[in-house]
Amino acid sequence: MIPTTPRLGMLIIVSGPSGTGKTTLCRKVCDGEKAVFSVSCTTRPSRPGEVDGKDYFFLDEADFLARVDRGELFEYARVHNRWYGTLKSYVFENLRRGVDVFMDIDVQGANQVRGCEDELVRRCLTDIFVMPPSLDELRSRLSGRATESAEVLELRMKNAEAEMQHWRDYRYCLISDTRESDESRFRTLIEAERLRSSLYED
Amino acid sequence: MIPTTPRLGMLIIVSGPSGTGKTTLCRKVCDGEKAVFSVSCTTRPSRPGEVDGKDYFFLDEADFLARVDRGELFEYARVHNRWYGTLKSYVFENLRRGVDVFMDIDVQGANQVRGCEDELVRRCLTDIFVMPPSLDELRSRLSGRATESAEVLELRMKNAEAEMQHWRDYRYCLISDTRESDESRFRTLIEAERLRSSLYED
Repeated sequence: MIPTTPRLGMLIIVSGPSGTGKTTLCRKVCDGEKAVFSVSCTTRPSRPGEVDGKDYFFLDEADFLARVDRGELFEYARVHNRWYGTLKSYVFENLRRGVDVFMDIDVQGANQVRGCEDELVRRCLTDIFVMPPSLDELRSRLSGRATESAEVLELRMKNAEAEMQHWRDYRYCLISDTRESDESRFRTLIEAERLRSSLYED
Repeated sequence: MIPTTPRLGMLIIVSGPSGTGKTTLCRKVCDGEKAVFSVSCTTRPSRPGEVDGKDYFFLDEADFLARVDRGELFEYARVHNRWYGTLKSYVFENLRRGVDVFMDIDVQGANQVRGCEDELVRRCLTDIFVMPPSLDELRSRLSGRATESAEVLELRMKNAEAEMQHWRDYRYCLISDTRESDESRFRTLIEAERLRSSLYED
């Protein structure tokens, strides 16, 4: 009666505009043993040094689309003429082994994953929106980042504002502050979610 | 767009058999300003030293039952010929002021609160089941507690086992370990839940 069987892993969706440090947060808590940063699949060719199954799962377009048709992908999107997505098999195997999977995806991708009717997803899914402290601060973080034109910066800001409309769709909203505070609160969220009843196997 | 308006308080239901230390956990995080331990109402007479509105809200039976009929109680139960319950008005006022309310109630009471269809409850509610580490350990904690007969101990154990069937109804399951670990994990849960998107006002 007292739950003692090994727990399932968590599927943690992390969204938010670029410049909030969400990718860094995910990387910090992924040790590869108990938690992994989700490996996407893509139809773009591998670049020198990239390892299949580590950087991406590299698939040809026919294979990718056949998998989409068979419902094997959680979420997928076409970017710059190439397909990107996440294989359910990869995520499910980790969850069943008790390994947490972090997915750094946009609000559309997050909606696709939430729409998945698999019981395992319902039990393991949680989602976090990382919010910039203010639009001014976001602008300053984005412009300090690279040698980008004013035009590109404006486009990034516009995209960020569009993403930010969706924070209420996420269970948690982490408003970015200092790096230390963000990391500490992010870890707190992960620790708390690990105590969810639904993660224990029946 | 970035949430900055004051957040609502949380309604935190804590259940679990006696002997798990759940009441102590609640008391430790209630400072009276940001978090209160829910004050029940009752039809039992006040005892010397008890303060109305602090220990209990003391009501006569006619008033209590009239309030039940008007739907003013979250949950209520009759124990030893007296009524006990929780006033919605008391809880809602605290939540709207941003004060967390901890309710230490049994699984039946928890079900009554979860059944409440108020939007505010849906947004603010979370629930934690505190589990003993084992039945042996629970027995030892209960028997070390007071000069109780073996019969009373067996009754307590039976009640505990009945309560423990319901741990899956709670979002979180905290399996009691040392006092320090329990308190640390309990605080982690509270801190994490404070980042819930639903707590921000529209």
